Amino acid sequence: MYQIGFDVGGTNIAVGLVDDNMRIIQRSNIKFPFGKKYDFVSQIMANEARDLLINNGIKENHVSGIGVAVPGSIDSSGEIIIDAFKLGFHNVPFKKSIQSHFPNLPVYMANDADAATLAELHAGALKGCKTALLITLGTGVGGGIIINGQIFKGGMGNGVELGHMILNHKGDVCSCGNIGCVETLCAATWLIQQGRKAIVEHFNSMIYTEAKGNIENVTAQLVIDCARAGDSIAINIFEQYIDALSSVIVSFINLIDPEVIAIGGGVSLAGDFLFSNLRKKVTEKSVYKTYAKIVPAQLGNDAGIIGAAMLHRNF
Amino acid sequence: MYQIGFDVGGTNIAVGLVDDNMRIIQRSNIKFPFGKKYDFVSQIMANEARDLLINNGIKENHVSGIGVAVPGSIDSSGEIIIDAFKLGFHNVPFKKSIQSHFPNLPVYMANDADAATLAELHAGALKGCKTALLITLGTGVGGGIIINGQIFKGGMGNGVELGHMILNHKGDVCSCGNIGCVETLCAATWLIQQGRKAIVEHFNSMIYTEAKGNIENVTAQLVIDCARAGDSIAINIFEQYIDALSSVIVSFINLIDPEVIAIGGGVSLAGDFLFSNLRKKVTEKSVYKTYAKIVPAQLGNDAGIIGAAMLHRNF
Repeated sequence: MYQIGFDVGGTNIAVGLVDDNMRIIQRSNIKFPFGKKYDFVSQIMANEARDLLINNGIKENHVSGIGVAVPGSIDSSGEIIIDAFKLGFHNVPFKKSIQSHFPNLPVYMANDADAATLAELHAGALKGCKTALLITLGTGVGGGIIINGQIFKGGMGNGVELGHMILNHKGDVCSCGNIGCVETLCAATWLIQQGRKAIVEHFNSMIYTEAKGNIENVTAQLVIDCARAGDSIAINIFEQYIDALSSVIVSFINLIDPEVIAIGGGVSLAGDFLFSNLRKKVTEKSVYKTYAKIVPAQLGNDAGIIGAAMLHRNF
Repeated sequence: MYQIGFDVGGTNIAVGLVDDNMRIIQRSNIKFPFGKKYDFVSQIMANEARDLLINNGIKENHVSGIGVAVPGSIDSSGEIIIDAFKLGFHNVPFKKSIQSHFPNLPVYMANDADAATLAELHAGALKGCKTALLITLGTGVGGGIIINGQIFKGGMGNGVELGHMILNHKGDVCSCGNIGCVETLCAATWLIQQGRKAIVEHFNSMIYTEAKGNIENVTAQLVIDCARAGDSIAINIFEQYIDALSSVIVSFINLIDPEVIAIGGGVSLAGDFLFSNLRKKVTEKSVYKTYAKIVPAQLGNDAGIIGAAMLHRNF
């Protein structure tokens, strides 16, 4: 049997045909038609999914279900998108709309961070865990929590917002309006901002040379690469970042005591230099003798599709 | 039927005879004999419990179980005290030792914060909750988490340490060795320290007058009372405290999304002045429209005994 997984983003909608071994057989992308009504969006999604089935010679009765991962808050019944700012969707009965195109198939909908966490649980870095976390360090900070081998959705249906735990209540204003959320200090955005500042203030920094003096060329990866290469200004930025991120990890260890913490998102691509320094700092700060393994997430950009495709396993 | 609950502390051991309605029929206290071997401690505890039964004319076959709440970490099987610094117990098979005195009764052992949380869940402020938190603001900051209507013990058996989530990673050193844990900013200790500083620096403060210029007289309650009475120096301390505590509460809401957050410990005795200001600040900071009720814990010093007595309900 096969599943269809949609990973809906504000720029693209990714669609994947996924087999029972959680491998993506084929995937395609369509542009998200921002500003159009949700019925139009579900129509083009259904068309794309049907094309995918036809191209692979798969009939609908060999599909066991359809999953939709959405960047926003979903009501506890999994029917309504409450708020998805990136999509411009508010109080939208999106599941029903998708369902109308596939009356014979079960349709599931979830938050995209929860879907990615589910994917890592069943097919990636969190395999076999009962209690675990995925943290994604990208433009923002997101992720999900596994408790009792299931996605933990929070007690009142608001879901979980790992990026909006507060790490420095005297710190900078966050996009959510609060002060000093994890997202203000641990997103890739923070590394980029610091790298840009370094370009403006330190012409002798390797960051300046590598970015050819152009702030547009500064990425989180570039800042970390310069730190790895030994540039003192980049090292200083990297150490501040590791200090903040390790405090976040220690907070999660002290609160949830997970078996594994998987880290995904753009920053995680920095690989072993990031992880070995992070683990060292967490060991210094941990009050427990044995605590969570800290590992890279494994599924990268596929996590959304795979997680969506396996949503039926969490119900 | 009756249960016996022990609340073991570094100063006293409280013992209570608890009925099926979770009321304490009678309680007594014995001094904790610090420095004595654990076998001696379990012996005097057993003696005290037997006296309690005899005094109330209750036979052992009318007792359904014995629970022991301990200020320390317990192994996941509930048999061994791993570390209880306040008791001087490390790797102690305390359950077995208690069991040896009551071969015919089931004996349960748990961390005291978990026991108090269980008590609030079954007989106090968290009644009927599936997902909830107890935070105790005393000399330190502790508490417990309820998930799926049960004590959440963490994924690796380390338990949860609400007081050691990090609230300001650039802040002060905590007793655990980390920087800026919740405990450094939200324990009663912080209010007392600030109140003492006010005495030394501001002779015109109401805190100075009320404490008769003696730092030994400064309590958390006194500082809050002076804020309530309108003293500007006390108000400044109180507002900083509410700012920190509200950020902690918002972090818990964003991570766990509990139905109720109960607050216990000495600070919570400040009552409505504390709670109304706290709720106002949490509402300002919350990103969710509906979120946890914030209420005082109900069982106070009885929570340990009651929670210990009902430990059998969590197994």
